[in-house]
Amino acid sequence: MLGGGLIGLAVAWRAALRGMRVRLADPDPGGGASTAAAGMLAPVTEAHYGEERLLALNLRSARGYPDFVRELEDATGLPCGLEARGTLAVAFDRDDRAVLAETAAYHHRLGLESVALSGREARALEPMLAPGVQAGLLVEGDHQIDNRLLHAALLKAAVDAGVRVHRSRARIVVEHDRARGLLLENGEMLAADQVVLAAGCWSSETPGLPPGVLPRVRPVRGQILRLMMTEPHLLTRTVRATVHGGYVYLVPRAHGELVLGATVDELGFDTAVTAGGVYELLRDAHEVVPGITELPVVEMRTGLRPGSPDNAPLLGPTALPGLIAATGHHRNGVLLTPVTADAVSTLLAEGALPGYAAGFSPERFASPADRNGTFR
Amino acid sequence: MLGGGLIGLAVAWRAALRGMRVRLADPDPGGGASTAAAGMLAPVTEAHYGEERLLALNLRSARGYPDFVRELEDATGLPCGLEARGTLAVAFDRDDRAVLAETAAYHHRLGLESVALSGREARALEPMLAPGVQAGLLVEGDHQIDNRLLHAALLKAAVDAGVRVHRSRARIVVEHDRARGLLLENGEMLAADQVVLAAGCWSSETPGLPPGVLPRVRPVRGQILRLMMTEPHLLTRTVRATVHGGYVYLVPRAHGELVLGATVDELGFDTAVTAGGVYELLRDAHEVVPGITELPVVEMRTGLRPGSPDNAPLLGPTALPGLIAATGHHRNGVLLTPVTADAVSTLLAEGALPGYAAGFSPERFASPADRNGTFR
Repeated sequence: MLGGGLIGLAVAWRAALRGMRVRLADPDPGGGASTAAAGMLAPVTEAHYGEERLLALNLRSARGYPDFVRELEDATGLPCGLEARGTLAVAFDRDDRAVLAETAAYHHRLGLESVALSGREARALEPMLAPGVQAGLLVEGDHQIDNRLLHAALLKAAVDAGVRVHRSRARIVVEHDRARGLLLENGEMLAADQVVLAAGCWSSETPGLPPGVLPRVRPVRGQILRLMMTEPHLLTRTVRATVHGGYVYLVPRAHGELVLGATVDELGFDTAVTAGGVYELLRDAHEVVPGITELPVVEMRTGLRPGSPDNAPLLGPTALPGLIAATGHHRNGVLLTPVTADAVSTLLAEGALPGYAAGFSPERFASPADRNGTFR
Repeated sequence: MLGGGLIGLAVAWRAALRGMRVRLADPDPGGGASTAAAGMLAPVTEAHYGEERLLALNLRSARGYPDFVRELEDATGLPCGLEARGTLAVAFDRDDRAVLAETAAYHHRLGLESVALSGREARALEPMLAPGVQAGLLVEGDHQIDNRLLHAALLKAAVDAGVRVHRSRARIVVEHDRARGLLLENGEMLAADQVVLAAGCWSSETPGLPPGVLPRVRPVRGQILRLMMTEPHLLTRTVRATVHGGYVYLVPRAHGELVLGATVDELGFDTAVTAGGVYELLRDAHEVVPGITELPVVEMRTGLRPGSPDNAPLLGPTALPGLIAATGHHRNGVLLTPVTADAVSTLLAEGALPGYAAGFSPERFASPADRNGTFR
């Protein structure tokens, strides 16, 4: 297993529970997007026209989340901060409202549950919303999890289940056109029949990976801020807003943290927090909830989302025998953690992806030549 | 000596050079306003109507800065980052321009050198200024210093000159109505004939200080950001701006740091960086120099300025015999460091403040009863 973020740890944990011997390499488990993210579990408010196949996978993962978390909390005794408090999308001007109305119509066509609200109704739910909020859309089924707690629990669960974690960079070792394991920085070889690549936005840059084996996974920077609320909390549920064409979300944690996110910057591996990114997040969030002004800023950081060519995950066998992908989750890594763990651990144990995941195989990007066994 | 910020260290260094035995206590030398500040040496652009006495002290300190820094750099071999590149004040709308014109007239009346510029002339000096800049005022004599380098050099100079620095909180010890020294946390007593109180905004909260001995020094929070410029630098000199009634400054360092400041918050000892503070700084700075958008934000922090009742420093004997004040420098602590060091070390060695500093004695706040020897 290469990668100790949420995806890598969840797959490793599940595989170990199925009796497999699992070793995992990561120089800094949880140092990437897993702990930067806001932890929204929002298949409905994240549903985009034309991505219905991804929506089905997202919904499956969301449905499985409560059981997944219960099992993880029981196994570790650690809380994961799953909060089933719903999500409220809001809009300001005429154009923002048109976007929201389109979203509502789309939900309706697909049979997804959401309730259109007036500005007044939205403020009745969240009284600190600005007077300028003109319309809302309540999605009772979109929740949140504290992804930092989740990561900590998964790390403990994996280790307790027998996963050996090596804090090291690693190189994929290929022999006779097959992945044979990982070579650690200290020279140690982790021989393996199956190697899972879960290195997020660094997946297609992994040392030793032959060219063309995996579609390109690109880094998509998100800048994200964390404020601290005083009691009583400014917000009780996640609020997502289109603000004069801009977009921002505010995710309130039970312990008082308020997560503001996130930019979507296609700028390579640059992890800077920029003046413009911070400015726009604060400007838009202030427009939605003016009361944030007095809140302390306790963190500003970035994460690099792993974006595949179609922004859907890459799950399953790659063009290199023995190498399995669990990457490319883009904006949905936290949400897709349970379903990815189930699908990839099933593949590892039984040799085939479950039907619901088959459409996400990296082979969907293969050209006809690849199918004949040559790498791009 | 209580306090190891710029003021405390500079006084201690000068006193040691005059042959005095100096011991200094501070739990975290430089942890306060000294290293938060932007380091502007701007007596002219900081000149405010009605504060002509303070202006004279500021100008004296500014004139002495080059020699002070040269001596310090020669003594330590450390650079202090004094940059004589001038300061450009700019204005946007009609009201901002009126403020700038008033400032220029005030300078003229006092014989201070400044040159009124059109927006075009201002942009000729600093091409990255926004098109919205309508007017400018160039002050060739207002400079900047890297106050972090300055603090590091003063610490070394003081220690090299024989000052013993104790990393500890301290309590003023009073016996028979006279300050007798400092008591450290570990129980060690630093007996002294003269105790200098240079604890910035914490000065009037110092343990052991009898009530009424010192006028109240209040904390005035400044929130300040540091960005990092790429080459070529966006700005070559300090720019100060009134932006639709708001106020911001941008101080470019030779090594690429761009300091944006600063809020003026009267909120007690709260050191939070707030969402509103960061937002307003970035909004106003972006209005002045739109090109900051892409720059990484490398630091956001606060400092607490020490504000006396009239916002001028408190220099000299207090109502408690043996206790001498060197505090209350408010916005001018960096600028006033050399003149404070000269004045207070002269008092320590010769028993009287030089004439130029006499008007800043804490006794200016004494009521008639105090002058008879009772504390307020």
